[in-house]
Amino acid sequence: MVKLDDIQRPALLVNEDQVRRNIQWMAEKAERCGVRFRPHFKTHQSREIGQWFREAGVKAITVSSLTMARYFVEDGWDDITVAFPVNLREMDLINDLAGRIQLNVLAVHPETVAALESGLRTSVGLFIKVDSGYHRTGVDPDDHTVMERFAEELAACRRVRFRGLLTHAGHSYKARSKDQIQAVHRQSLAAMARVKDALASRYPDLQVSVGDTPTCSVAEDFSGVDEIRPGAFVFYDLTQFRIGACTMEEVAMAAACPVVARHPDRGEVVIYGGAVHLSKDAVEGPDGKPVYGWVAEFAEDGWKAPTGCCSVTAVSQEHGIVRACPEHLERLRVGDLVAVVPAHCCLTANLMGAYQTLDGRVISRL
Amino acid sequence: MVKLDDIQRPALLVNEDQVRRNIQWMAEKAERCGVRFRPHFKTHQSREIGQWFREAGVKAITVSSLTMARYFVEDGWDDITVAFPVNLREMDLINDLAGRIQLNVLAVHPETVAALESGLRTSVGLFIKVDSGYHRTGVDPDDHTVMERFAEELAACRRVRFRGLLTHAGHSYKARSKDQIQAVHRQSLAAMARVKDALASRYPDLQVSVGDTPTCSVAEDFSGVDEIRPGAFVFYDLTQFRIGACTMEEVAMAAACPVVARHPDRGEVVIYGGAVHLSKDAVEGPDGKPVYGWVAEFAEDGWKAPTGCCSVTAVSQEHGIVRACPEHLERLRVGDLVAVVPAHCCLTANLMGAYQTLDGRVISRL
Repeated sequence: MVKLDDIQRPALLVNEDQVRRNIQWMAEKAERCGVRFRPHFKTHQSREIGQWFREAGVKAITVSSLTMARYFVEDGWDDITVAFPVNLREMDLINDLAGRIQLNVLAVHPETVAALESGLRTSVGLFIKVDSGYHRTGVDPDDHTVMERFAEELAACRRVRFRGLLTHAGHSYKARSKDQIQAVHRQSLAAMARVKDALASRYPDLQVSVGDTPTCSVAEDFSGVDEIRPGAFVFYDLTQFRIGACTMEEVAMAAACPVVARHPDRGEVVIYGGAVHLSKDAVEGPDGKPVYGWVAEFAEDGWKAPTGCCSVTAVSQEHGIVRACPEHLERLRVGDLVAVVPAHCCLTANLMGAYQTLDGRVISRL
Repeated sequence: MVKLDDIQRPALLVNEDQVRRNIQWMAEKAERCGVRFRPHFKTHQSREIGQWFREAGVKAITVSSLTMARYFVEDGWDDITVAFPVNLREMDLINDLAGRIQLNVLAVHPETVAALESGLRTSVGLFIKVDSGYHRTGVDPDDHTVMERFAEELAACRRVRFRGLLTHAGHSYKARSKDQIQAVHRQSLAAMARVKDALASRYPDLQVSVGDTPTCSVAEDFSGVDEIRPGAFVFYDLTQFRIGACTMEEVAMAAACPVVARHPDRGEVVIYGGAVHLSKDAVEGPDGKPVYGWVAEFAEDGWKAPTGCCSVTAVSQEHGIVRACPEHLERLRVGDLVAVVPAHCCLTANLMGAYQTLDGRVISRL
């Protein structure tokens, strides 16, 4: 039975059973598809939740910053990829961590490889960040000149060890169906294969690392891929649901937020739960306006799967405005708690200081 | 001279001299206009910056949560208004704080007053939250029925002490000129005056509390107002600049972010500085798309005032995409630091764990 009485202010609930099911499901899929499972820990940023991954057999992880890498190194993780273009201002931390574990970093420019090599005191693994279509950052997979420069630069390195090619097909987030996700996935894999082929004569053993929750949730064919790095699947969220990457029952996170005011004349209630809890990330609502989360009521054993009849339509620092259907509106009272499935679980988790299981146990994070 | 060499990862810089000038300017304005200055500390959430307000003569403050109130009570602040509809699930903390200081809370419903009274063990000040036009929450100023119910409920209270009327004219954030801000201000003050008049026969000494940075920055006439509660003016930001509430030279906060990749072909650089640093709050760019901050270079004595020629046009968890003018683009190198004036100083301050002065001193916060 879910323990709500002690919740006084916005609290981030995780359904541990569902989190463990999500982890197990993805671990089994990776095994079935013959790829290494290197989950992205930027979503949860928690050693205890990391332990749940360990119990599912995970040995190597991904993070998005060197600070996050340090936090997990101190918990015994010894094979970590920092999936972010290497920040040359953090050479001290890179050297410290690379001296203790197998650390992998990313480069977008051959010049960065040279700068990294000259600052290193110990060996570090390097992946070239490939832009497989998202166009956030990375190397154009068809730019043979830059690939050739990378190959030469890396051949001259003593401490930088060229491990492979990495991409994040973040354009999968623009998909709105499983078919669209599959199309992004095939196009991304084809781009990676072209780069691998171009470098194969000099570097025959390059690893190919891909990873985003939509494609890893939906695709079954990972030909040419060595490892996957999904992160958000651990909790899932409204964005993943809207993309078609999960069902609402698979969402394992909701913010419990107190109702503080009612405005039945305009079909709204005000909750204690705003931009400093949920973030300002949003999905597009039916009217084209932002939706920061879907709202549900609690049941005996957790929150009910929200249907979209109640949603958070505005957030300021601490306030959330919930547009509610008449049935919910009538029931909700000041002092009640509602459950908010957020638009983006990573940003909500980053904002809330800690998690709470359904039975009231607090789980800390970085 | 600004100390940048030690900055390894995104750091939130504050220009202490400019912060103190902003505080002094608003304190003098309040005195000139004959109103109490009860600044909103939700923007900075820092005891040390609170101390700068003390040195400018401030004795009473505003916060947005009871947790924040507790943090400042422990630093000796003894007159605090929690400018958020009172959360009845936190009665223990309300009783604790109200037993130690002059605590004021807000109510939007007469029923809340009754629930509060029945849970209190000591006296607490109460303000009715009036919706003067923002329509986030609050009582309709022309709803005489509900005002009458409030008056009766409050007359029956022994511990809840009716102090006055409070509003946040947040619709000033939709303004795009000083004239528009003034119009919001006049309309808001007129609404407050109507409520005060309606209650004057039974409660002749009600306080009127208003506060939002745009109107407090621009208006000079505060007739009928007893106190002002601006917050964001302490740092200002791109939003306030766009509204017309400040100049870019008055902005006292910028995030220092390392450049991690360059994409001159598309006129962009990638910075280590994303949604977990700047927040996803944005202003509207010239093309109707979101802008998360304006980017400037550093000079000897701080950051140059940004002109909008470089701006953050996309953020993901750790990445920021900067669209840069050709001159900047040519100069910027991987490993350089840029200064980002964020869209919304309150949310950026909330995300970053601490501040750093230009000479490298770290300032902690809640």
